[in-house]
Amino acid sequence: MKIISSEDHRKHFPKGELFGGEFVRPFECPERWEHIVNRLKVCGFDDFAAPDPLDWAPVRKIHTGPFLEFLKNAWAMWEAEGFNGEAVPTVFAARRMQQREPNHIDGKLGYFSMALETAITAGTWEAAQASAAIAQTGQRLISAGAQTAFSLCRPPGHHAASDLYGGYCFLNNAAIAAQGYLDAGAKRVAILDPDFHHGNGTQDIFYARGDVLFVSLHGDPMDAFPHFLGFADETGSGPGEGFNVNYPLPPGTPYSVWGDALNQGLERIRNYSPDVLIISLGVDTYENDPISFFKLKSDDFTDYGARIAGVGLPTHFVMEGGYAVEEIGTNTVNVLQGYLGA
Amino acid sequence: MKIISSEDHRKHFPKGELFGGEFVRPFECPERWEHIVNRLKVCGFDDFAAPDPLDWAPVRKIHTGPFLEFLKNAWAMWEAEGFNGEAVPTVFAARRMQQREPNHIDGKLGYFSMALETAITAGTWEAAQASAAIAQTGQRLISAGAQTAFSLCRPPGHHAASDLYGGYCFLNNAAIAAQGYLDAGAKRVAILDPDFHHGNGTQDIFYARGDVLFVSLHGDPMDAFPHFLGFADETGSGPGEGFNVNYPLPPGTPYSVWGDALNQGLERIRNYSPDVLIISLGVDTYENDPISFFKLKSDDFTDYGARIAGVGLPTHFVMEGGYAVEEIGTNTVNVLQGYLGA
Repeated sequence: MKIISSEDHRKHFPKGELFGGEFVRPFECPERWEHIVNRLKVCGFDDFAAPDPLDWAPVRKIHTGPFLEFLKNAWAMWEAEGFNGEAVPTVFAARRMQQREPNHIDGKLGYFSMALETAITAGTWEAAQASAAIAQTGQRLISAGAQTAFSLCRPPGHHAASDLYGGYCFLNNAAIAAQGYLDAGAKRVAILDPDFHHGNGTQDIFYARGDVLFVSLHGDPMDAFPHFLGFADETGSGPGEGFNVNYPLPPGTPYSVWGDALNQGLERIRNYSPDVLIISLGVDTYENDPISFFKLKSDDFTDYGARIAGVGLPTHFVMEGGYAVEEIGTNTVNVLQGYLGA
Repeated sequence: MKIISSEDHRKHFPKGELFGGEFVRPFECPERWEHIVNRLKVCGFDDFAAPDPLDWAPVRKIHTGPFLEFLKNAWAMWEAEGFNGEAVPTVFAARRMQQREPNHIDGKLGYFSMALETAITAGTWEAAQASAAIAQTGQRLISAGAQTAFSLCRPPGHHAASDLYGGYCFLNNAAIAAQGYLDAGAKRVAILDPDFHHGNGTQDIFYARGDVLFVSLHGDPMDAFPHFLGFADETGSGPGEGFNVNYPLPPGTPYSVWGDALNQGLERIRNYSPDVLIISLGVDTYENDPISFFKLKSDDFTDYGARIAGVGLPTHFVMEGGYAVEEIGTNTVNVLQGYLGA
């Protein structure tokens, strides 16, 4: 299995994450990447590759022009204001307010975001582009005939919508890969999102499209971030009706229950008969994850990797979340080993 | 002129305000109140009164039940989570997301807010209720025949909508007073909002109503907080069409230009012929205000107080913003003295 990876992720590492009313060291941190790489090496994965340069064509089909322009300029605009901290929004376009992009960076930050645990820093935009290129490079390998690949993306992507960032995500790596498959000739793409958090960005991007099936297992938004998307009654709209499938699950969900939802989701994917399956691979379903509430044990990750293999599709793993830093390597590699039958 | 005031405002004083990516001492602080009270005394105002107990009937016509329930319980729910900081939201119901109130306090905070410069603390709800009672008590005096009154509210109110807090505001004191006038028999109420920031909450509350005319002069939302409401094309809807009047003004606006907009606004109020005029009195239009960009000098406040008097209506001053703490007393009392012709 080819692993696509880059040290460029280090360019994004805010000093602070707003959590519980104070700035704490971000849960989404560079060590996450290091633990995964180390564990991959220990387990004999040695086929590492750097990403190709980013192809902007699929990126521009996923994200709006003003949003990309904002991400590119946000740090410089923030710095020009002379603020002391890292760039976080403070005011939002709440319900019944205007959805118009303001001139001032304070307004732009709120206009283009849905959460503020992740600050924008000097290197954020470069890291986000590298992460998208990592997803794209995996896509090109599979479009060219590989059966699988692992895009070790950081920052993650599934919370980013066409014009919204948040939840540690800026560009939606999995969505950009999905668009790449379609542009390379695929007719149908399925995305399975087993990350603990609902992939609100991915859902939103493909909500009215029938060429991408989105299936997500996640903490019930009534109780879990991102709180405002991921309900079971969100099934798609227009040509996308029926192609969005959410399994919101309650606090304390064990693998037995989670696995049943996974089986249902995999059955939906089988019936859709896609050309390729993307896995938005978050391992924050782990029982000791510090910001999540499912109860999966490390062996369960191996088991569900095997179940994914059972669907028999070309499968592209794209890294998303997971914040139990010590165990993130084990749990991530367990999924890959389970998939490979290793 | 009766001054309605209470020491209960001190119960709301967060340690930190999120500004420029870090927590700073809040611009909206108890000393604001002290400087106004001191200046009032220096200038011979001595008719101070405590507020009557809050009458919930008009409050419930302005704010939704779930919002009031949230404000009442937010601090206890936050504390129960064991967070270290004061209560601030981190995730928002951005565009295309669901407008459903989540169970978890993190979700509730975002669902019920439009900004996060103001933390919720142990005493916030009590202070907000006292502030609303101060507005209501002034309203009762004028409904009973007084020509004027000054409700020295803190926290302020004009950014609070029926179900949204933010911008230092929790309950919309001016809107609660307006509802009180109507409930006491008034047929038409006008609210003039000369605070530097657009009174998005007040506008939103009365946007579809013809019994309250809302006129606001403020920093253009393209450049100024609250960024997502306060545009000139927002004129009201349904029975409220024509009863919302915004004068967004650019950075650096001097009194000559601001005063022209004020004259136009006062003309609109005259033509409406209301039973009473509420002034959402913010003095952050002052040239040295730390978070605003108009260029009014202290004498200009006296001048515009006189212009307000020229309309010849019973006039209820309700305190809103103003963050040049040293000068807030002078500028506020200048408006009152200008009004009284003192």
